[in-house]
Amino acid sequence: MAVQTVASNTTSPVDLGPAAALSCRECGERFGLGPIFACASCFGPLEVAYDLPGDDPEALKKRIEAGPNNIWRYAPLLPVPADVADKPNINPGFTKLVKADNLARELGVTGGLFIKDDSGNPTHSFKDRVVAIAVEAARAFGFTTLSCSSTGNLAGAVGAAAARAGFRSCVFIPHDLEQGKVVMAAVYGGELVGIEGNYDDVNRFCSELIGDPLGEGWGFVNVNLRPYYGEGSKTLAYEICEQLGWRLPDQIVVPIASGSQLTKIDKGLQELIKLGLVEDKPYKIFGAQAEGCSPVSTAFKAGHEVVRPQKPNTIAKSLAIGNPADGPYVLDIARRTGGAVDDVNDEQIVDAIKLLARTEGIFAETAGGVTVGVTKKLIEQGLLDPALTTVVLNTGDGLKTLDAVAPTTGPSATIRPSLEAFRDAGLAG
Amino acid sequence: MAVQTVASNTTSPVDLGPAAALSCRECGERFGLGPIFACASCFGPLEVAYDLPGDDPEALKKRIEAGPNNIWRYAPLLPVPADVADKPNINPGFTKLVKADNLARELGVTGGLFIKDDSGNPTHSFKDRVVAIAVEAARAFGFTTLSCSSTGNLAGAVGAAAARAGFRSCVFIPHDLEQGKVVMAAVYGGELVGIEGNYDDVNRFCSELIGDPLGEGWGFVNVNLRPYYGEGSKTLAYEICEQLGWRLPDQIVVPIASGSQLTKIDKGLQELIKLGLVEDKPYKIFGAQAEGCSPVSTAFKAGHEVVRPQKPNTIAKSLAIGNPADGPYVLDIARRTGGAVDDVNDEQIVDAIKLLARTEGIFAETAGGVTVGVTKKLIEQGLLDPALTTVVLNTGDGLKTLDAVAPTTGPSATIRPSLEAFRDAGLAG
Repeated sequence: MAVQTVASNTTSPVDLGPAAALSCRECGERFGLGPIFACASCFGPLEVAYDLPGDDPEALKKRIEAGPNNIWRYAPLLPVPADVADKPNINPGFTKLVKADNLARELGVTGGLFIKDDSGNPTHSFKDRVVAIAVEAARAFGFTTLSCSSTGNLAGAVGAAAARAGFRSCVFIPHDLEQGKVVMAAVYGGELVGIEGNYDDVNRFCSELIGDPLGEGWGFVNVNLRPYYGEGSKTLAYEICEQLGWRLPDQIVVPIASGSQLTKIDKGLQELIKLGLVEDKPYKIFGAQAEGCSPVSTAFKAGHEVVRPQKPNTIAKSLAIGNPADGPYVLDIARRTGGAVDDVNDEQIVDAIKLLARTEGIFAETAGGVTVGVTKKLIEQGLLDPALTTVVLNTGDGLKTLDAVAPTTGPSATIRPSLEAFRDAGLAG
Repeated sequence: MAVQTVASNTTSPVDLGPAAALSCRECGERFGLGPIFACASCFGPLEVAYDLPGDDPEALKKRIEAGPNNIWRYAPLLPVPADVADKPNINPGFTKLVKADNLARELGVTGGLFIKDDSGNPTHSFKDRVVAIAVEAARAFGFTTLSCSSTGNLAGAVGAAAARAGFRSCVFIPHDLEQGKVVMAAVYGGELVGIEGNYDDVNRFCSELIGDPLGEGWGFVNVNLRPYYGEGSKTLAYEICEQLGWRLPDQIVVPIASGSQLTKIDKGLQELIKLGLVEDKPYKIFGAQAEGCSPVSTAFKAGHEVVRPQKPNTIAKSLAIGNPADGPYVLDIARRTGGAVDDVNDEQIVDAIKLLARTEGIFAETAGGVTVGVTKKLIEQGLLDPALTTVVLNTGDGLKTLDAVAPTTGPSATIRPSLEAFRDAGLAG
């Protein structure tokens, strides 16, 4: 039997903790927990609905704080079984929230500036969070192979998580990826298949495979496990608030690829308010794109409610989704919270990577250059208030996108090994 | 005035917490805390001597456990001021101790196998630990420039730490390093100087610079700050024991470059015993080298007490120190604890990197391939007891040594985007 692609309205006996059902984000219809991702009635996207814990907020905080130093401390708020921390998983999360005082001075932020640095995850991107949740869903549904389509970060995250959790993995990539990314995707020993075509061709192929008997028993983390996978991004919101001392930030700057991460951060913040873990007060969510792939930013600035697809052309490849599935939801959240969506060009991205490295010693991947660059731009435009507490996401590691900075980053001087040569170079300082 | 290279016997008013003095490892003579690294009497290496806290062990454990999720939780045992966590630093440490059950099965370890995975540090190697301590010493001594000689990992760690802590940095590297390492060293915005020559030439140049007025105000983390710097490696021992539930491991496998890390891990374990934080019981320390740079392993197997220098030729470049300063101390510790020192060749290193990736989803740099490979070899030789609790160090990240695995790591297949082509590839599983 092929994997279901739309829901039948059945209930399921799987134990995914507080996850109660899947519900359609468009029409609200509910479905039993299963490997499904589109509403049987309206084909809208499905998301996880919860029976959240009824604990007293202080007791719940204590329970969380006593948990492990990874995302499983939030197990009561995630679609995972209560004993998740005992299962083999790569245990991402609880990455550093860095108080960026040097960067704040450069940008003129006086209300407190923080970098949520997800380069500290096991495979050095936020993808470890979403994959870790998908692994537990795959376990619950009895899948034996983990799969995805990817251009880099996700392939490594799936490969690593599958290896540790005891799944077979088979990951699909465009055949002409850079060698570094291919090595990272292949080193964990799963199957890696190069597809002759671009990323869209890879995606189309994966959709075919899900509907075919060949794909039986396969959990595609970003397709048939997507409702669970996406919930991993909520943990960014949880961690930021806990690390701020159970306070909401006033402003948060999030990169936009599909837009899912931004919507889930909003969902996470709303849950914390509902549970009484943080004060119910306004916050603003800002979205950041690269100019070379800015469909959501373009729509935001034009006042549109729909997002017109673009053909990506930017060094920020991990954000290069020209037709972002969650674009309209992002527009809605940015407008509803009083935020904005903006973009920066490749040169500004590189400058921002270097600015963050030079001020805070954090080497971000291009997506981090996008968020820092957009933060700078939003401040200059008066859209982001420098007197408010602001959190900027860095979702990946500069080691993964060395090519972006390599052409303009090198030695100050090359000299003979002599004091005279060093004196002549004028670097004694 | 040039920086002192040998100690005068004066006391210093600097506040480095429990650090009471520097003491000579050879003759035991004590010196005041200062930027000195060789004994004025016998030219032996200096190390930090402490007034360790007299707390009740349970109270001290609680104090540590209530500290931050980084090495500063152990501030009472390190040469840093008590308020160190409030100062700008990159705050490394408290990296994952991964229970490696899959790898244990492959290697036949039944007593519990753990990987201490230091790729989770801010710049993805254990060097962040030692540099973080050196930064606090540099602050205490009033230095304004941080420096080092490096072939890669250390340059990045110094660049990042200096940027965040507000120091100027000037780092020296051989002029012909791989571009990736140059980018990593330069991106933090400090001065990076390529020296026309090999690593030995770079080191010789740095020694000259320390003795010259040009180097005034410069803290060379691995030269005139070395006694403090080295202490950072003790935190590996502290974390391993705390993460094991305040228990000593039975066996621990440590890579050997200069040998300093291994000696400091032993020092850390001894301190925990002395403080009553762990039970006083025997443990064995094993050293791991690459065959292409195995001076300590060679001496161990020959029964020598001195280490004969070698010219390195191995893919494990971060361990390629042909004349390891702490070699004789390593030999002594391995023999005294009942451990051993062994080596693996480049092919075994690559195999071990892949073995760890495939079983635990951890992508180690070549130094991690050395420790895992040597662990396997020691078990096969009956020198490491598989029935005992064993901790293996991975000190860096595979992203930094992609070249080691790239030639033998790639896609299983490259196909057209069709189900038929996929079926023909035989990967449906």
